[in-house]
Amino acid sequence: MEPWSRPRAGRLDESEVESGVLRGNPLGDPARRPIWVYLPPAYETDRFRRFPVIYLLQGMTGQLDMWRNRHPFRPTVPELIDALFAGSGTGVAAPPAIVVFVDCWTAYGGSQFLDSPATGAYHTYLCEEVVPWVDARYRTLPEPEHRGIAGKSSGGYGAMVTPMLRPDLFGGLATHAGDALFELCYLPEFGHAARALRDLYGGSFDRFWEDFRRRPAMSRPSDGVLVNQWAMAACYSADEDGTIRLPFDPVTGRLVPEVWERWLRWDPVRMVPGHADTIRGLRAVYIDAGTHDEYFLDLGAEGFRRALASAGGPEPFFGLFDAGHGSIEYRYPIAIGYLAERLQP
Amino acid sequence: MEPWSRPRAGRLDESEVESGVLRGNPLGDPARRPIWVYLPPAYETDRFRRFPVIYLLQGMTGQLDMWRNRHPFRPTVPELIDALFAGSGTGVAAPPAIVVFVDCWTAYGGSQFLDSPATGAYHTYLCEEVVPWVDARYRTLPEPEHRGIAGKSSGGYGAMVTPMLRPDLFGGLATHAGDALFELCYLPEFGHAARALRDLYGGSFDRFWEDFRRRPAMSRPSDGVLVNQWAMAACYSADEDGTIRLPFDPVTGRLVPEVWERWLRWDPVRMVPGHADTIRGLRAVYIDAGTHDEYFLDLGAEGFRRALASAGGPEPFFGLFDAGHGSIEYRYPIAIGYLAERLQP
Amino acid sequence: MEPWSRPRAGRLDESEVESGVLRGNPLGDPARRPIWVYLPPAYETDRFRRFPVIYLLQGMTGQLDMWRNRHPFRPTVPELIDALFAGSGTGVAAPPAIVVFVDCWTAYGGSQFLDSPATGAYHTYLCEEVVPWVDARYRTLPEPEHRGIAGKSSGGYGAMVTPMLRPDLFGGLATHAGDALFELCYLPEFGHAARALRDLYGGSFDRFWEDFRRRPAMSRPSDGVLVNQWAMAACYSADEDGTIRLPFDPVTGRLVPEVWERWLRWDPVRMVPGHADTIRGLRAVYIDAGTHDEYFLDLGAEGFRRALASAGGPEPFFGLFDAGHGSIEYRYPIAIGYLAERLQP
Amino acid sequence: MEPWSRPRAGRLDESEVESGVLRGNPLGDPARRPIWVYLPPAYETDRFRRFPVIYLLQGMTGQLDMWRNRHPFRPTVPELIDALFAGSGTGVAAPPAIVVFVDCWTAYGGSQFLDSPATGAYHTYLCEEVVPWVDARYRTLPEPEHRGIAGKSSGGYGAMVTPMLRPDLFGGLATHAGDALFELCYLPEFGHAARALRDLYGGSFDRFWEDFRRRPAMSRPSDGVLVNQWAMAACYSADEDGTIRLPFDPVTGRLVPEVWERWLRWDPVRMVPGHADTIRGLRAVYIDAGTHDEYFLDLGAEGFRRALASAGGPEPFFGLFDAGHGSIEYRYPIAIGYLAERLQP
Repeated sequence: MEPWSRPRAGRLDESEVESGVLRGNPLGDPARRPIWVYLPPAYETDRFRRFPVIYLLQGMTGQLDMWRNRHPFRPTVPELIDALFAGSGTGVAAPPAIVVFVDCWTAYGGSQFLDSPATGAYHTYLCEEVVPWVDARYRTLPEPEHRGIAGKSSGGYGAMVTPMLRPDLFGGLATHAGDALFELCYLPEFGHAARALRDLYGGSFDRFWEDFRRRPAMSRPSDGVLVNQWAMAACYSADEDGTIRLPFDPVTGRLVPEVWERWLRWDPVRMVPGHADTIRGLRAVYIDAGTHDEYFLDLGAEGFRRALASAGGPEPFFGLFDAGHGSIEYRYPIAIGYLAERLQP
Repeated sequence: MEPWSRPRAGRLDESEVESGVLRGNPLGDPARRPIWVYLPPAYETDRFRRFPVIYLLQGMTGQLDMWRNRHPFRPTVPELIDALFAGSGTGVAAPPAIVVFVDCWTAYGGSQFLDSPATGAYHTYLCEEVVPWVDARYRTLPEPEHRGIAGKSSGGYGAMVTPMLRPDLFGGLATHAGDALFELCYLPEFGHAARALRDLYGGSFDRFWEDFRRRPAMSRPSDGVLVNQWAMAACYSADEDGTIRLPFDPVTGRLVPEVWERWLRWDPVRMVPGHADTIRGLRAVYIDAGTHDEYFLDLGAEGFRRALASAGGPEPFFGLFDAGHGSIEYRYPIAIGYLAERLQP
Repeated sequence: MEPWSRPRAGRLDESEVESGVLRGNPLGDPARRPIWVYLPPAYETDRFRRFPVIYLLQGMTGQLDMWRNRHPFRPTVPELIDALFAGSGTGVAAPPAIVVFVDCWTAYGGSQFLDSPATGAYHTYLCEEVVPWVDARYRTLPEPEHRGIAGKSSGGYGAMVTPMLRPDLFGGLATHAGDALFELCYLPEFGHAARALRDLYGGSFDRFWEDFRRRPAMSRPSDGVLVNQWAMAACYSADEDGTIRLPFDPVTGRLVPEVWERWLRWDPVRMVPGHADTIRGLRAVYIDAGTHDEYFLDLGAEGFRRALASAGGPEPFFGLFDAGHGSIEYRYPIAIGYLAERLQP
Repeated sequence: MEPWSRPRAGRLDESEVESGVLRGNPLGDPARRPIWVYLPPAYETDRFRRFPVIYLLQGMTGQLDMWRNRHPFRPTVPELIDALFAGSGTGVAAPPAIVVFVDCWTAYGGSQFLDSPATGAYHTYLCEEVVPWVDARYRTLPEPEHRGIAGKSSGGYGAMVTPMLRPDLFGGLATHAGDALFELCYLPEFGHAARALRDLYGGSFDRFWEDFRRRPAMSRPSDGVLVNQWAMAACYSADEDGTIRLPFDPVTGRLVPEVWERWLRWDPVRMVPGHADTIRGLRAVYIDAGTHDEYFLDLGAEGFRRALASAGGPEPFFGLFDAGHGSIEYRYPIAIGYLAERLQP
C-alpha cells in the first residue's frame, strides 16, 4: 500500500552470483554477490518472447540493497522502473526490457566497474560472469544490439566505459551525471583531501582509515572526500602489486603528473578517440546531468557528448536539468525507457 | 551477508494494524498501517518471560519502510538494534526489550504524533490502538514503568510529549534532537517560507502543493521548508473544522501572535511546567542532540533538560555530540539501551 | 584619476561637531564627531539659493570614514552622489540637494540612531545637534518638507524611525534593506548567539567581549552575530541604569518575552500604527531591498510598505532587486535622487 | 581621533609616478600611477640615516586607494604599519624601514606584477621605474640586501616571483596567502567559469565583459570567478600580439594542456628549482596563510616552503593561522616587522 509499497506489475528476482574472479580479491570483499533481476509484465504474458537487457550500476558507496532506499514522498527506483514498464502514471508502457541490478561494491566504496589490482576484477565479473549468468537464466536477447548499460555518477562512469571496452557485449548506454573530465570532477577535491590529512591525520591515509573504521562511518565532514579520492586511486592508479598511487602529494596537494596521467587514461572523454569504431557502432546513447552538479558532471556530460560527436557516434539523447548531483533518481526511468525503445529487436 | 545484510539474532515481525480512529482521516491517508515489532534473542530463549517495550517514532516525512534505508558504510537501524540486544560488537548485550516501529506518516509528511482535525488522530492511534495491539500479541510488561518511547527529530518530539499526555502509558522517554524551543527550530524558517511563496507561488500555499505534487517531490530547494511549516501548522494550529492556520503572514513572514501562541502551547519545553507531576513520575529520560544541529535542537535539548530539572524530574542522560541534524541514526542504540536497562522490572 | 579618484563636480566639507549630549556617554565614546557635508555643483553656482538636505546614515559598525571604502571596480558612495548631482553617466543631473554624512558609531558598533541609557543619546544628537549645526552653516531649506533622511541596514532603520519620532524635522525617508520585522531579521540569530556563547564563552557575554578586544576584531565566525545582538539589546532594551537586557536566555536561546516585547516596540513596522498622522504627512518614501537579503529585509520592506499603506501614507517608491544584503551601495543614488526630487520647494 | 583616524607617528607621502613603460599599454590604463611612501618616525629624527625599503603589493582588483579601506572595529593597513614602527600597542617598535605602496592595477583587476602583452609591462614598471624613483627621492639603503617585497594573495604572488626574476633588486620577501600551486588555487574555478559562461553568456567571455561593464561590477555571483580567470590568462598566457589564451575550453571546462603548461611555468612553486641560486641568496623569507584559505593557499604556502628548502634557501618564517582568505590584513605588520628586522644593515 502506498506510500510504503506499491503493487508490482512485473517481477523482481533476488539472487546471488558466486563469482570466480572475485575470489581472493585484495580487499577480502565477498565473492558471493547479490543480484536482482527485474522482469517486466510482458515477461510473464509473452512466455516465448526474448527481451533486451539493461544492466543498472550504482554510484560510489552503492551496495545493492540501497536500491530499496526510500526518499521523502518518492517512489524507490524499483518502483519507478516497474511503473515505467507497467505504464502506470503516464498510461503508456515502455517497450519491455529486463533490468539487472548489479553489485560491484568494495570496502573502499566501489570499483568503478574496472579491474584493479587493488580492489578486484569487477569489470571481468560484470562482463564475464554476470552477463552470462543472466543470459543463462532468463529469456534475453543476448546480442550486443539488445544489451544496454546505465547508471548514475560512478554508475554512469561504468556505463560510459564498459561498452568502449566490450563492444561485443553492450550496444547502448545511459549515463546520469557520470564521472568525466577528471580535472573538473576529481581534481578540485585534492586540496580538500590534503588539508584534511594535514589537519586530522598527520598527512597519512592509513591513519584516516584507522579512524574511519573506529567510529560511525561518514560522520566527519572530510570523510567523503578522503574515501572518494582513495577509492579512485585504487581503481585508476594501483600498481600490479596492489600499491595505490595517489595523484597528489598528500602533504601539499600538489599534482603528481605521472599518476595523474594514469587517471586521465581512464577518463571517458579522453577514452573516446581511442574507441571511435566502437562508438560508431553504438545503437543508443543517453546523457544527462544536473546544471549545478557539485562535481561539474554537467560539463563532463557536455565533454562526453562532444567527444562522441567527434568520433562519429550516434546522435545521443542529451539533457541538462535543474538539479545538483543528489536526489535525481527520478531520471532513471527516462533513460531506461530510452534504451528499452532503441534496443528492441 | 555484510554489507548487504546481517544475520539477525532476534526477530522482526512485519504486520499491519487496522486503525479505527484513522478511518476517514481528513487527508484520506490509509487507516491500515504497517507496524514492525522487533523481538530480542531472549524473547525466543526465555519463552515465559515478559519484556519492556520501547516504541520508536520517526521524524518528519518518515514512513515505516524507511527504517530499512541504508547509508554508506553503515548498518541500518534494525541492524543496530539487533546488534545492541545480541551484544555483537561490544560483547555485552543490552537487557532485553521489545522495540516497536510505529508509522504515523501523513500526506503532509507527518503528524507530530498528535490528534489534529487537519491530519487525523495519530496520538489516539498510537496510545489507544497500537499499544493495546502490541500488548495483546506479545509477552510485554504492560505497565507504564516498563514502557518507553523514543525517536529523533519529530520522533523525538513525539517521545517528549506523549508521556506527558499519557503518563498512564509511558514511563520512559528518549529524544534525539527532538523539536523543542519552537522559536529556534521553526520560526527562523518562516522568512524562507514567505520568500519562497512570494518568488514561486504568488503567496499561495495551494499553488505550492499543486506544483509539489506535479513533479518529483523535494526537487526544489524550498520544498522542505514549505512542507515542514505547513505540516506543523496542520498539527499545532488547525481549527476544529480542519482549517489550517499559519503562524506567519505568507506575504510578509510577519508572526501572527494568536496562532504562534497555539504553537507554543505544544512546545515540549513549555509543556513541562503543566505536567510537573507526570515528569516527576518518569523512570528514565534520555536527551541528546548534535552541537551544530541545523534546527538548534541542541539548544532545545538543553531547554528541555532545564525544564525537567525545574519540574523535579529524574536526572536524565544528557549528551551533546559533534554532529548536525542528519545521519545520526547511530545514536538510536545508545538511547534504546539506556531505556531498556531502566525499564526492566 | 580613475579608478583611484574622480574629479568632483560638487564639494565635500569634512568637519567635526562637538556634541553636548554625547559628553560622558556610557561607553566613553568620543563626543566630538566627524561630519561630512556634500554640496552639489548648484550650491556654488546659485549662490543665493537654499537647498533641501538629505541626512545619510550608516549601517551597524559603520564609522564615517568608511564611506570612502572602495570596492573592486566600483565608485565610492561620495563619488556616486557627486555623479548623481553632476549628471555624469546619465547626462541628467538630479535636482540639487545637500547630503550630510552623519556619524553615530559606538563601541558596540552602532546606536540605531536612538537614545539609550547603554550607549548614549544619538537620536538627540542627530536631531538636536547635527540638524541645527547644518542649518546654521549652510544654505538649507530648514523646513521638514525639504529635509530627508536615508540609509541602509541599520541606517535604513534610522531613516524609518527618526521621521516617526520627529515629524517636525523630517518630511522624507529612504530605506535600503532597513531593519524591520524583528522576528525575521534578529530572532533567527539568537540560536547562533547562544550556541557561540556556549561553545566558546561559557555562556557569558562578558567573556566574549574580553576575547573580542584581545585579538583582531571580527576574526571569529561568531563575532558578527554576538556583536550585533548585544548592540541591539543595548539600543532596544537597556534599563535606565544602563543594564542591558537580552531578549533570549544566553544558555538555551529561549526567548525572554518581556524583553522581546521591548524590542518589538522599536520595530518600524509595528511603530507605524502609532504614528499614523505623521506617516500621512510624509512627502516622500523610498523602500528597497535585495530579494535574497540575508536578514529577510526584503520581507521587512514589504511589511513596512503595507504598514504605511494601512496608515494612509503616501505611495512610496518600492523596489526589490536581485541581491543580498551586502555590496548594494549602488542603490544609494537612486534613493537620494528620488528624495532630492520630491523634497524640492 | 579613533576610530575614525589615529595620530600618525611617521609620515605618509602620496605622490604619482609617470611611467614610460606603461604608456600606451594594451588596456588603455593610466600610465600615471599613484604611489605612497611611508616613512617611519626615525626617518625624521635620524636625518642622515638611510633605511631599508619594503615594497607592498596588493591583491587582485586592488587599487592604491583601497589601502585606506576600513573594516569594522579594525585599523587600516597604514595605521597598522605606523603602529608597528611607533611601537604603539606592543611598546616595542620594529627596526625602522620605509614602506612603499605600489599600484599595478589594470582594467582586468590586476597584473600579477608581470610583463604581459595583454596588460602591460608592470614587472618592468615596478623594477625599473618605481624602485629608482623611490631611491632617488628617499634616504634608502639601495642594495638588494636591504630591499624587500611583500603582499597578500596576488600581492603575495608578486612578492614570491619578483625576487626570483630580479635578485639584483630584492633580498627579502613576504607572502601572505600568495598564489601558488596553480592546480589548487586556479584550476578548481575553471568549472565554475565554464558553467557561468554557458548559463549566462552563450560561452563567450566577450559577452561577459559587455554585461559586466553595463551594470554594477561584481553584482553577479559569477563575476569574481570570470574576472579572475580572465585576468590570470591575460598575465600568464597572452600571445605576443596580445591574444589571451584560456587554459580551459570555455564550453566544457576541459583543460587545454598547452596553455595550462604556460600557466604552470609561472607557478612560484615550480619556478623555484630554476632559480635555486637566487633563492640561496635571499636574506629573509616570510610565508603565511589561513588554514582554511578558500584558494588552498595554505597548501600553496607549504609547497613554496618545501620548494625553497629543496633549493637550499634560508629558513623562512612559516605560519598557518585559523582564517580564510579574506580579512587577514592584521598579518601585514607581522611580515613587515620580520623583514624590517632582517633587512637592516
